[in-house]
Amino acid sequence: MRAMTVVPGQPSTAGVSELPEPTADEGAVLVEGVAVGICGTDREIVEQGYGVPPPGSDRLVLGHESLGRVVEAPEGAGLSPGDLVAGIVRRPDPVPCPACARGEWDYCRNGRYTERGIKARHGYGAQRWRVDAGFAVPVPAELGVLGVLVEPASVVAKAWEQVDRVGDRTWFEPSSALITGAGPVGLLAALLAVQRGMDVTVLDRVTDGPKPGLVADLGARYVTSLADVDPQPEVVVECTGVGSVVLDVLSRTPPAAVVVLAGLSSGTPPVPVSIAELNATLVLNNAVVVGTVNAARRHYVDAVDALRRADRGWVERLLTRRVPLSRWTDALDATGVDVKVVIDLSD
Amino acid sequence: MRAMTVVPGQPSTAGVSELPEPTADEGAVLVEGVAVGICGTDREIVEQGYGVPPPGSDRLVLGHESLGRVVEAPEGAGLSPGDLVAGIVRRPDPVPCPACARGEWDYCRNGRYTERGIKARHGYGAQRWRVDAGFAVPVPAELGVLGVLVEPASVVAKAWEQVDRVGDRTWFEPSSALITGAGPVGLLAALLAVQRGMDVTVLDRVTDGPKPGLVADLGARYVTSLADVDPQPEVVVECTGVGSVVLDVLSRTPPAAVVVLAGLSSGTPPVPVSIAELNATLVLNNAVVVGTVNAARRHYVDAVDALRRADRGWVERLLTRRVPLSRWTDALDATGVDVKVVIDLSD
Repeated sequence: MRAMTVVPGQPSTAGVSELPEPTADEGAVLVEGVAVGICGTDREIVEQGYGVPPPGSDRLVLGHESLGRVVEAPEGAGLSPGDLVAGIVRRPDPVPCPACARGEWDYCRNGRYTERGIKARHGYGAQRWRVDAGFAVPVPAELGVLGVLVEPASVVAKAWEQVDRVGDRTWFEPSSALITGAGPVGLLAALLAVQRGMDVTVLDRVTDGPKPGLVADLGARYVTSLADVDPQPEVVVECTGVGSVVLDVLSRTPPAAVVVLAGLSSGTPPVPVSIAELNATLVLNNAVVVGTVNAARRHYVDAVDALRRADRGWVERLLTRRVPLSRWTDALDATGVDVKVVIDLSD
Repeated sequence: MRAMTVVPGQPSTAGVSELPEPTADEGAVLVEGVAVGICGTDREIVEQGYGVPPPGSDRLVLGHESLGRVVEAPEGAGLSPGDLVAGIVRRPDPVPCPACARGEWDYCRNGRYTERGIKARHGYGAQRWRVDAGFAVPVPAELGVLGVLVEPASVVAKAWEQVDRVGDRTWFEPSSALITGAGPVGLLAALLAVQRGMDVTVLDRVTDGPKPGLVADLGARYVTSLADVDPQPEVVVECTGVGSVVLDVLSRTPPAAVVVLAGLSSGTPPVPVSIAELNATLVLNNAVVVGTVNAARRHYVDAVDALRRADRGWVERLLTRRVPLSRWTDALDATGVDVKVVIDLSD
């Protein structure tokens, strides 16, 4: 079978490999790959050598934003042939830490987890893959290919769960949210904010392409400068990871705000910052800053629910480009108008 | 009666003023001032003009770390003549925000609060003061003058409450804590950590004076470099507000750590910082950073409880100097060996 592989950090090695069929020790559920989404992490693996192939392999099968169709599943797994599933990215170590042992591998304490398509475990970017039922999340048939967004939406579902749980330390009934970054994660964060009935503003620097329209069609405001954000948001979900944006957001936290940091970026140089002033802003405003990465199974389930409740036409517009497996490396060249590029594994 | 007053920002004006007796509109409970503690905020008011006198006054009565003895109290207030009380610092606006309306004025959303001895309301540094019963916290007679530590301990009680409430967003059973800064707030934070049965490390730069011994006698470790902190703390209570310390702490957050920022400092210049890297550390570790300031009534009550359970001899050693009201400005010159300097209002 064919799979999308790379030697991490060597872009010239990115291509399609012919691999043996997955073996039963990789999981009891056999799945036919339908699609995978490409994100910044994939590009970092290819270009900068982020990530690690499985032991004994030079190459890593990419793909952690997955959608597949069950081919065979054991009795009692709750899965039948033909069902759509999304695979969970992270796996706890066989000797789990206390958080992993509770299914909260997203909060793993000892770092000995693996991640499909990222860290020491092949990804889902293959024509067939196997997974244990506990790491396969059912996707309703009505979602179809939109199920490929379950993984990025799970990150966002976790972000909003964190807002609720952390915000509850005091009286907190937020009605306004700012999302920084109108990439797939930012747009999904905005979707979930709108589903909560919030007044939502999305900040991004681009003025062309589909992003402004996608935001407007959610009923949210689109701005290109923080100075234009009004009202002051009680919740910020920061999805860019860009230093200047993070600093701007933290420097403007209003009283009792919750700021979720959910973005990563690389390569921004140090700039002069008064950390004492930033500290004073957070202290005097009782602000909370929550870093979040990865997701537990419950967040995938929440993500499915959020996508199912969304306007299907709107979600479809997030998938701006589909690339066949045979040409999957084309997806690494994101254009300014791309939101989410998806690899069609059947093609 | 006499009171310690200043025109904020004019150190030469700091002195003892003869003022009229407090009037009933200032509160139904009449209190004889016993003592007030001096902290960095008082010094900022005197030297840098932080704070605001009440409307119509050039001078501000200082004193927000208070201890007094009830002279008269209305029926049903739960207070009798002779009872010790600590006064709460913050008052909500007559038209309270939703948080203030719930008694959580420490999370005031509209900023229209006042603060005794700091913002638009005279402080407790007077021979007599008045307060409404809802803002007078009973202090057991057994605590005596140690009750002057109730206010700084309330800030710390709130910090630990925040650790519990924010930490509960995931599995969180922390056993190790790092306290940065061995001033009064840091030492009280360490006391509360030890009372929780935690493994506690306290970081400060001084190597002489009472601090190392106070930390050792709590059963905690004293270090002068973050490199010496082992084990990695699951909780950090940052009590210095110094930019370099805050940055060091945030840059080393272990997975799922809770960092409470409870310190303020001024005058540290900007330094080159990669905010993108700092962001990535917080994101990839699912770290939470909580700024905290001020305290609600429940935190004062928790503070009284913590002080009552502490070793009396140890707490007494925090009060390193007592200064009579007539010479209160001597307290503004903190020496390296001072922990908490207290003004004796009866003298």
